[in-house]
Amino acid sequence: MTHSQSVIAVLGAGSWGTTFAKVLADAAAAAGSERSIRIWGRRAEVVEQINTKHRNEQYLKDTELPTCITASTDVAEVLDGAGIVILAVPAQSLRPQLREWKPLLAPGVVVVSLMKGLELGTDARMSEVIAEEFDIPAARVAVVSGPNLAMEIAREEPTASVVACSDEATAVSIAVCCTAPYFRPYTSTDVVGVEIGGIVKNVIALAVGICEGRQMGDNTKASVITRGLAETSRLALALGGQAHTMAGLAGLGDLVATCSSPLSRNHTAGRLLGEGLTLEQVTERMTQTAEGIKSGHAVHELAGKLGVEMPITAAVVAVLEGKMSVDDLGPRLLARALKSEGDY
Amino acid sequence: MTHSQSVIAVLGAGSWGTTFAKVLADAAAAAGSERSIRIWGRRAEVVEQINTKHRNEQYLKDTELPTCITASTDVAEVLDGAGIVILAVPAQSLRPQLREWKPLLAPGVVVVSLMKGLELGTDARMSEVIAEEFDIPAARVAVVSGPNLAMEIAREEPTASVVACSDEATAVSIAVCCTAPYFRPYTSTDVVGVEIGGIVKNVIALAVGICEGRQMGDNTKASVITRGLAETSRLALALGGQAHTMAGLAGLGDLVATCSSPLSRNHTAGRLLGEGLTLEQVTERMTQTAEGIKSGHAVHELAGKLGVEMPITAAVVAVLEGKMSVDDLGPRLLARALKSEGDY
Repeated sequence: MTHSQSVIAVLGAGSWGTTFAKVLADAAAAAGSERSIRIWGRRAEVVEQINTKHRNEQYLKDTELPTCITASTDVAEVLDGAGIVILAVPAQSLRPQLREWKPLLAPGVVVVSLMKGLELGTDARMSEVIAEEFDIPAARVAVVSGPNLAMEIAREEPTASVVACSDEATAVSIAVCCTAPYFRPYTSTDVVGVEIGGIVKNVIALAVGICEGRQMGDNTKASVITRGLAETSRLALALGGQAHTMAGLAGLGDLVATCSSPLSRNHTAGRLLGEGLTLEQVTERMTQTAEGIKSGHAVHELAGKLGVEMPITAAVVAVLEGKMSVDDLGPRLLARALKSEGDY
Repeated sequence: MTHSQSVIAVLGAGSWGTTFAKVLADAAAAAGSERSIRIWGRRAEVVEQINTKHRNEQYLKDTELPTCITASTDVAEVLDGAGIVILAVPAQSLRPQLREWKPLLAPGVVVVSLMKGLELGTDARMSEVIAEEFDIPAARVAVVSGPNLAMEIAREEPTASVVACSDEATAVSIAVCCTAPYFRPYTSTDVVGVEIGGIVKNVIALAVGICEGRQMGDNTKASVITRGLAETSRLALALGGQAHTMAGLAGLGDLVATCSSPLSRNHTAGRLLGEGLTLEQVTERMTQTAEGIKSGHAVHELAGKLGVEMPITAAVVAVLEGKMSVDDLGPRLLARALKSEGDY
């Protein structure tokens, strides 16, 4: 382990950021390495709780965090000398934050995105926003994605994941860094495929949640998942991603985990919409962002620009915009999405 | 509709046979056609209940069957003049039954398999056993498969499915025959892919059930489903099936429905094994066959002959044979099955 990897900054103290900090700490312990992991959080009470109680109760209940994890509201302090920076903040507010953080970065830093979203307006993926705003080469930007419900990982349930970077050596070094007894990362160079899988699954999870809220059965839900992965793959291929990635952990795996789990925010948000709540009521009810609600629009826009047919995404966006009722969505998904089995 | 399609024989009065008879009846009603559907069942009390109460309570609880459905224990009576014969009997006892039924078939009959199994000893798919024993061309043998939990279809929940036949015209004519308001069949000519998807998903569902019985989370289950579809695809491709079919309703769709639903027998059998019951106790506890328990061995054998790596199937067979404990299976599935993300 190089010197720079012994200090890791995690920007964002939500459930995934905090859980990933624990994975990094447990990985170092398993490898017998010294490592200090510093979390930056906006809220003083969360930071205080991590430092004094070694817990982040709002997001991870009674999970105990290793003592090599500290937290601060001062981002300069957190970034000082960190060779790896993990980003886990809401996708839509990333860009202005990166501008603020850029002068504080150590030279040669490797940046890892845990975020799953497409920027509204630019339709940029998170790795693109990072490379652009930090002005670093793609070879130093990695993404982590897979069937990774944070709460299960916090409970140390066995989990596999994918670390992707255009530079394979970077992907391998990050994978080594986060291999814990309960967390197995695999590597990929298909950053586009891995990111698109993670982004669109949130939109498909909204659709599956809505079907569930309308009391539709597992036959229907499985059809929506199947056709949802097909439209995700069409978008990924149009952007240069690989079909193979979509059939793997960051495509199919993440989609199935998200659509099966009551722990998924997007799945839950969809279910509440399906039960008849308005978008405003759903947003109020949820403590964390359901990213698919925001990214859905960007995905729909990007698909339109590229001429990619994404009927499930289109239907979800129509519901979010109040242009389609949840009663019409279910039957329409089945009819439209299944128009052509075989038309990939 | 030709004359011969107005009489349809359904051989097998279990949940899927009886449900499919209802689909055929509702399809005819929706099309304004006269159709008589005759079910053959072994047990007099089931036949009697279908004829007098229009119900099959053991399998379909309070679902009411249309009156154009009748039943008999006399297979000659059921087959007399039937232009379409639907087969829905246990896979492992099919061959001797076909020998007995052959002399009773009407000329030019089209045979449709609802069965999902691989014959022990010969490793033959059901459509192959049918063509062989009935001595009819593959163009007159179709298979129906997809995310089709029978109980949900009996409740008329919206469901999509795939009708496959090497002869596209036959596939289309059967699809037309079974298009009901709540049942949408799509057509395919990839019989191998559709059958292999339906066979192996039962084995993967056992694995997912075992993980569930061991209290493993959705991250693990999603990984097993992902790698399970990958090994299913490898087998299908080795036999001449298409990757595309595996990504569709009869591959991914059926696998996800089966692995999500508490209604699946194979999923339930796996869960009971995972909870620590012996194979004998599980078999006693289940009223219907969990086909994956039998087909697992045949799939494992076939994969061996073809040199196809199927680590999840191998692990499930080892558990069924008592050579591996359910405690070892979970971690081994994750470790072995995920050895090489990307190695399709």
